[in-house]
Amino acid sequence: MSGAVVTLSGGVGGAKLVLGMSYVVAGRELVVACNTGDDFTHLGLRVCPDIDSVLYALSGLSDQTRGWGRKDESWTFMSAMKDLQGPEWFNVGDGDLAMHVLRTDMLAQNKTMAEVTGNLALRMGIEADILPMSDDPVATIVHTDAGDLAFQHYFVREQCGPRVAGFSFDGTENAKPQSQIVDTLQSDPEAIIIAPSNPYVSVDPILQLKGMKAALKNAGAPIVAVSPIIGGKAIKGPAAKMMQELGKDVSVLGIAAHYQDLIDGLVIDVQDAELAPQIREMGIKTHLMQTIMTDLSGRIELAKATLNFAQECRT
Amino acid sequence: MSGAVVTLSGGVGGAKLVLGMSYVVAGRELVVACNTGDDFTHLGLRVCPDIDSVLYALSGLSDQTRGWGRKDESWTFMSAMKDLQGPEWFNVGDGDLAMHVLRTDMLAQNKTMAEVTGNLALRMGIEADILPMSDDPVATIVHTDAGDLAFQHYFVREQCGPRVAGFSFDGTENAKPQSQIVDTLQSDPEAIIIAPSNPYVSVDPILQLKGMKAALKNAGAPIVAVSPIIGGKAIKGPAAKMMQELGKDVSVLGIAAHYQDLIDGLVIDVQDAELAPQIREMGIKTHLMQTIMTDLSGRIELAKATLNFAQECRT
Repeated sequence: MSGAVVTLSGGVGGAKLVLGMSYVVAGRELVVACNTGDDFTHLGLRVCPDIDSVLYALSGLSDQTRGWGRKDESWTFMSAMKDLQGPEWFNVGDGDLAMHVLRTDMLAQNKTMAEVTGNLALRMGIEADILPMSDDPVATIVHTDAGDLAFQHYFVREQCGPRVAGFSFDGTENAKPQSQIVDTLQSDPEAIIIAPSNPYVSVDPILQLKGMKAALKNAGAPIVAVSPIIGGKAIKGPAAKMMQELGKDVSVLGIAAHYQDLIDGLVIDVQDAELAPQIREMGIKTHLMQTIMTDLSGRIELAKATLNFAQECRT
Repeated sequence: MSGAVVTLSGGVGGAKLVLGMSYVVAGRELVVACNTGDDFTHLGLRVCPDIDSVLYALSGLSDQTRGWGRKDESWTFMSAMKDLQGPEWFNVGDGDLAMHVLRTDMLAQNKTMAEVTGNLALRMGIEADILPMSDDPVATIVHTDAGDLAFQHYFVREQCGPRVAGFSFDGTENAKPQSQIVDTLQSDPEAIIIAPSNPYVSVDPILQLKGMKAALKNAGAPIVAVSPIIGGKAIKGPAAKMMQELGKDVSVLGIAAHYQDLIDGLVIDVQDAELAPQIREMGIKTHLMQTIMTDLSGRIELAKATLNFAQECRT
């Protein structure tokens, strides 16, 4: 067993667990496969919301109050852009721009997304191995009653308003799972953790990469998800609304069903204790605990418990 | 006579006269040919300091205290860039970034520099016709005792410290004068004004464009320069230091000699009254006035007087 822990993560919610993980898993043994389906090019700048959420969380730069972006942020760029009649729908903070500008400049020099992400993480003093799910571009498309929307158009511009009918991930036919993620999965990792991120738009883009599910299953490590749904609601974001609109069971049962063919165990909140037997009947082990991460110690506790539970799931 | 006034301008000093001109010359009859030899690509963003100085001046956005850039500026981007160990030598304000990002994005869509500049001017409510000297890139190189330096490296990074031996303008062999400037020069303009900008690094890049000098001379309009040197000193910038290092006469006589083969008249400050006869002996008419533009009314006065003087120079 290599000791490596591969964590699949989306943005803010996932980043909280990854931060907890970084206190429990030493240095580069923590390998984070970040969703890049939300990535898009805005005003010529390559914006990677989930990677940045993880980088900001791990470097202590996240804004805790706003819930996204950098702390101590200013907004003069947006104000000037408004005066210039430029696009206003996507908010970019002045400090956040430094990331987008540096990243775009490095990509223009033909560095891979993994090289760029690793370089940024290094500049930010982050020890964990933060990786894009793929070096190739993938774009999440949300099929809605208002037509097909690029993810950020659905999420930011339309504020998740349109009713969701399904998703597709442009580019997955050609996008390969990032090679370091694959290498780690082939090196007998200790555990594979699916962070409490949106299953449809944060985790599925990762899972839909050609060969990714097989690589996860063949790794020989226990695969454990942390439910993003607690008491029938999502802590943050549109996961519950999406499940409802897709006609799914808006509960941990829906999450269990979604990951049924993949996971060995599911961490659920104590609020959902009465649903645990039904999850176990689906062949998925359960671990009950207080999963709402209100502070750093909560994040570390959840990370520790999830990893311990993963070892219990090792068959 | 078309009524058009073609003004050759560099950055801050030139922009002040252009602002005065905009109160005297109606709308698009004011055609400004801006130096783009200072332009460079920084972190993948195309930065055009002289064009932006003119755009900021005409839209009332210039910072009067700092003397460059936008008023009400913030600097969070630079602070974040420093934390990310990115380049710190070139200061970019957060609001200023909106210009660079919009411009770079438009250029990436294969718009010409003139189209991009006109689009920005329109967004800023500017009526005058602000044009890059050329749609083709030209890069001013400063030959110094510390080697050949790209202009911004000399000007910003090295703070004009190295001793200047000469200049070259990369790209002038292929760069064509911008076509609207040429068209205006061929349409019997009322006057051609050389703003009180640095003759070596702000005006010469324009004059060195293939065919530009001939186009100016063949326009049939009086060509009048406003001296950037007053009492042997430059109001701002390294013009006097450069003249001294190049072994030139650091006075309005040096300016007259520099433009001798081109101009019909030179506006000089009352401080330099005693040098006027020597300038006239060179075949250049002179106009004496208070040329230091401390406020808007000073800029308008200088613009009016310069245009009146140009008509006196019409032969």
